[in-house]
Amino acid sequence: MAKIVECVPNFSEGCRQEVIGEIVESIEQVEGIKVLDYSNDQSHNRSVVTFIGEPEPVMEAAFQAARKAAKLIDMSQHRGGHPRMGATDVIPFVPVSGISMEECADMAKQLGQRLAEELNIPIYLYEEAATKPERKNLSAVRKGQYEGLIETIREPERRPDYGPAEVHPQAGVTAVGARPPLIAYNINLDTGDVQIAKNIARAIRGSSGGFPSIKGLGILIEETGQAQVTINVCDPQKVPLHRVFELVKIEAARYGVQVTDSEIVGLTPMDALINAAAFYLQLAGLEKEQILENRLLE
Amino acid sequence: MAKIVECVPNFSEGCRQEVIGEIVESIEQVEGIKVLDYSNDQSHNRSVVTFIGEPEPVMEAAFQAARKAAKLIDMSQHRGGHPRMGATDVIPFVPVSGISMEECADMAKQLGQRLAEELNIPIYLYEEAATKPERKNLSAVRKGQYEGLIETIREPERRPDYGPAEVHPQAGVTAVGARPPLIAYNINLDTGDVQIAKNIARAIRGSSGGFPSIKGLGILIEETGQAQVTINVCDPQKVPLHRVFELVKIEAARYGVQVTDSEIVGLTPMDALINAAAFYLQLAGLEKEQILENRLLE
Repeated sequence: MAKIVECVPNFSEGCRQEVIGEIVESIEQVEGIKVLDYSNDQSHNRSVVTFIGEPEPVMEAAFQAARKAAKLIDMSQHRGGHPRMGATDVIPFVPVSGISMEECADMAKQLGQRLAEELNIPIYLYEEAATKPERKNLSAVRKGQYEGLIETIREPERRPDYGPAEVHPQAGVTAVGARPPLIAYNINLDTGDVQIAKNIARAIRGSSGGFPSIKGLGILIEETGQAQVTINVCDPQKVPLHRVFELVKIEAARYGVQVTDSEIVGLTPMDALINAAAFYLQLAGLEKEQILENRLLE
Repeated sequence: MAKIVECVPNFSEGCRQEVIGEIVESIEQVEGIKVLDYSNDQSHNRSVVTFIGEPEPVMEAAFQAARKAAKLIDMSQHRGGHPRMGATDVIPFVPVSGISMEECADMAKQLGQRLAEELNIPIYLYEEAATKPERKNLSAVRKGQYEGLIETIREPERRPDYGPAEVHPQAGVTAVGARPPLIAYNINLDTGDVQIAKNIARAIRGSSGGFPSIKGLGILIEETGQAQVTINVCDPQKVPLHRVFELVKIEAARYGVQVTDSEIVGLTPMDALINAAAFYLQLAGLEKEQILENRLLE
């Protein structure tokens, strides 16, 4: 089976459309790459590109984009509302299909090394690619941002994983890492009582003692008058959609409330849905190769 | 989204491996085609190839295979246990993803016309591509087989849809059609009483008044001692997996019996599983484009 990786780099340019366009183009022109989405935020002065492909072209596209950003963005002039430290601020690799988290972490290391060697940019590895526990968390890695790092990057415990212990004057510093796919998943209730949705969100999310990989809030959808549990499923291998859905149904029943429907917002790996089908149909031994479309991706 | 079609042609050669090899090769060398499987039966003296791709290359590959078969197989010399009328006996197109049955029927008509014009082979359209109700059923189309058709093809009601009303001496006659995908689906029970599996099969299958697109039998799996309902889901758009599964669970409960698991044997279109996930998760408005892997097939 083909190994498919998603890459979601963030760039410190959210205003100059021609710069964003050139960066996206540098990604698109790598053979085998599909750009799924890109968006920019002017007040953050930042843009996000989502693309997928096999490991080699994905690494190449990420490198080309970072090279282009290093040319076109000058961090010494950058202002914006979102924490940032580099022209290419972060590059996460996300395993989609046929590839392990370890392989994505290895990709982060390979790319990090190349960015350091060829572009002389200091690189931190973060999340699942981190070399130290304290570097798993991106906000710890980015602490002080571009301006602060000019000094602190020289401290021994902040030494980058690759490249010089010196901020690149224009390109700054880049974090390269690996993380699981994130699915934005909403579950609607047949009640207008938002407190029930809030209680359910509290029951399932990590921050109040639930699943560490689940984030959730209770909100009211004005258009329908329905309360909704709005969820980020941050590691669908560890806590899959069906477990979230069934648990919300059970917690809702406590209030005599039922689930009317659920929705996936944006993108999902196929696996997350196939796993739900396999759970409910009690499917034994389903192999990826049995799915016709997967054979076209071989 | 890409349109993906499966094609499962049957050829009247099950013994000479070099002939089967040349036919498969003629399919494989068409750009954009993946051969998923091929198998041959010596006593039937017949082989089956399964391949997928987008409509144009699939039609091209089917044509190239039929041309090769017409060169290498002489129906006047053919003997075998399976009903047959042509070197390329049947060519069904199966909609897998992003394509309708009507489009597959159109493909059958295009290919049929080309086979008649360029190879002078008489063509019958069958199943969903049939031009008359009595030609839907392949066994009615093939009645009399190669030998009988030499005479009967001249009768007005048996006039082929394309090509001469005269059997091609070597290549015979070919049926080209369109049909839904078929999923081989087994459901295992926590009982060794095969009669219960037989009763459940009778409740769901078309031949005893159940769903017309469902075939089913009750059998005993010797290795596990479990009774199994073994099912062909012949039109998963009309009767999807979840409906079969839930109905078997309900019928089994009548005997105090539970389902232990289910299994898909061989290939399935992704949609059949995505639809099951959408049913059980009560997913509203899921679009194919939201599935990451589908974007690579665009």
